[in-house]
Amino acid sequence: MTLSVPVRSARLAQRSCAVFMAALILLACVPAIAQVESLPSWNEGGAKQAIVKFVADVTTPGTPNFIEPSARIAVFDNDGTLWAEQPLYFQFVFMLDQLKAAAPQHPEWKKNPAFRALATHDQKAIAALGEKPLLQLLLQANSGMTTAAYDESIRTWLATARHPKFNRPYTDLVYLPMQELLRYLREHGFKTFIVSGGSIEFMRPWAEKAYGIAPEQVVGTVTGTRFELQNGQPVLVRLPKLEFLDDGPGKPVGIYRAIGQQPIFAFGNSDGDWQMLQWVAAGSGPRFLGLVHHTDAEREFAYDRKSRVGKLDQALDDANAKGWTVVDMKNDWNRVFSFQ
Amino acid sequence: MTLSVPVRSARLAQRSCAVFMAALILLACVPAIAQVESLPSWNEGGAKQAIVKFVADVTTPGTPNFIEPSARIAVFDNDGTLWAEQPLYFQFVFMLDQLKAAAPQHPEWKKNPAFRALATHDQKAIAALGEKPLLQLLLQANSGMTTAAYDESIRTWLATARHPKFNRPYTDLVYLPMQELLRYLREHGFKTFIVSGGSIEFMRPWAEKAYGIAPEQVVGTVTGTRFELQNGQPVLVRLPKLEFLDDGPGKPVGIYRAIGQQPIFAFGNSDGDWQMLQWVAAGSGPRFLGLVHHTDAEREFAYDRKSRVGKLDQALDDANAKGWTVVDMKNDWNRVFSFQ
Repeated sequence: MTLSVPVRSARLAQRSCAVFMAALILLACVPAIAQVESLPSWNEGGAKQAIVKFVADVTTPGTPNFIEPSARIAVFDNDGTLWAEQPLYFQFVFMLDQLKAAAPQHPEWKKNPAFRALATHDQKAIAALGEKPLLQLLLQANSGMTTAAYDESIRTWLATARHPKFNRPYTDLVYLPMQELLRYLREHGFKTFIVSGGSIEFMRPWAEKAYGIAPEQVVGTVTGTRFELQNGQPVLVRLPKLEFLDDGPGKPVGIYRAIGQQPIFAFGNSDGDWQMLQWVAAGSGPRFLGLVHHTDAEREFAYDRKSRVGKLDQALDDANAKGWTVVDMKNDWNRVFSFQ
Repeated sequence: MTLSVPVRSARLAQRSCAVFMAALILLACVPAIAQVESLPSWNEGGAKQAIVKFVADVTTPGTPNFIEPSARIAVFDNDGTLWAEQPLYFQFVFMLDQLKAAAPQHPEWKKNPAFRALATHDQKAIAALGEKPLLQLLLQANSGMTTAAYDESIRTWLATARHPKFNRPYTDLVYLPMQELLRYLREHGFKTFIVSGGSIEFMRPWAEKAYGIAPEQVVGTVTGTRFELQNGQPVLVRLPKLEFLDDGPGKPVGIYRAIGQQPIFAFGNSDGDWQMLQWVAAGSGPRFLGLVHHTDAEREFAYDRKSRVGKLDQALDDANAKGWTVVDMKNDWNRVFSFQ
């Protein structure tokens, strides 16, 4: 009968204690925090200034633009925005390697024009075929595998494959300034998400270590899977079916499905991110829209309007017209990769 | 040139300070925390004991069953597990109301057998038709709406509709013991997710307030949407297409897509959760599997093997055979709803 009284008092005591101690922490640690330089790989300039200003703007309590932490949703494209994407999307390289490995089990592919074009590196034929037959073929290569086996094949590939220009594992090619930006946003109460045309399976094994982004905050392209019991063991089996393409107009749909809130901060680098940026820009309240412009042929790659991979054309015009933040890689970043 | 030295020192100072203060908090607050009763709406007994034991087991550092917080993923069905589902899934009631409201704009429905069965409450005809034509009709009712307008219609309905037995808003019918359990898990470093046959749109407007579960941690059934510019404004428009049914064998698929990690803790209440429980039980390491058994006709509803809604039959046999935790609502919960 009297149990509820001590319980309530204890709860109150606990809360008061926590509040008091939190206040102590703030008092004791604030001067130290203020001295730590934010975003050290970003040069002083327009892009860094815009980021820091926006974050201060939406995180200062009691000001008109203040946004609650629960609504501080930040979304990032992956290929070309958080890590490199040249000379070919890294996942595409992986899929081609898979295709080669699976070819002996598929003699019928010899007659498949998509396979022949890929096997002979016939760029003209590849371009003429378009995306669809290539995708269908690539999906077939992994069809019937369990998700666990597929995951293993990705981890093995990532551990052994090397980038042709840098001769390093692909996961070394994440942009240091963007890693800093992700951490900076989280330190200011943001939730950070990837929203990528790449598939969820390909990003999740390394995104937490590389970016601090947990698997459930990785939104991407989805291949069909089916639940089955194999020898009494529940497994998910991959189907030769692209269920959701998280690219271009698919990105706002992916955000709606997987996040369910309008982000206030978005970063991309190509026309495949344009609709995402438009979607995030829509609605009222402060918004940050950013594009990484690849201008550094020496430290990384230089490409934009005419590129076969990561083409940036319409989104760049729109960014310039609307005053979105365009990062000039060469001038805005004093380091690109952590190994440089 | 010397900038890096003060920056590093400041960072070290900040870290040491945070560690020191965190230790202080622990020292100061632990006695108070220990006195707070956990799960007050749960009677002492097997179910509560099993939960508390499991949580202690996986959260005690330095013991063999310890699991890192990042892998403490807990998934919950919604209908019948976190809130009531009788006499009819609440979302189904909403959809029927939507259908009635849309009927004047769809004179062609008069000839539709599914519409006629629903409009005349012809249970026999409804059962004979099966799910598919009913679902197709319900999808048509909201097709063409923007996601924002659809969200508004859900919020309006939730604010005005009343449950036939309790004469209260449907969102009052969340189970207090499960709210406590969700909080308890999060206090022990778990990430909590809903994995429901209900649609994401129907749960997200109220799940954070009711359960402390943010929109991006609500996994559910997905209706197709398409990105469009309407008068230059980006919107998502609903399509008459069920894209993903997050029920039965769909639940493990939903977990794989949206969470990307094997949960270690799962709660359901019906055969629609069976595959999810099997999926979570698979693999190595400690696992908690729970079922809510509706045994309380007075405070809630009593139903299981023969129920039209929330049928619990095969999963109950499996739970008994495998020693999963079955919550006997009547005996394990001293309160069901917070208003009781």
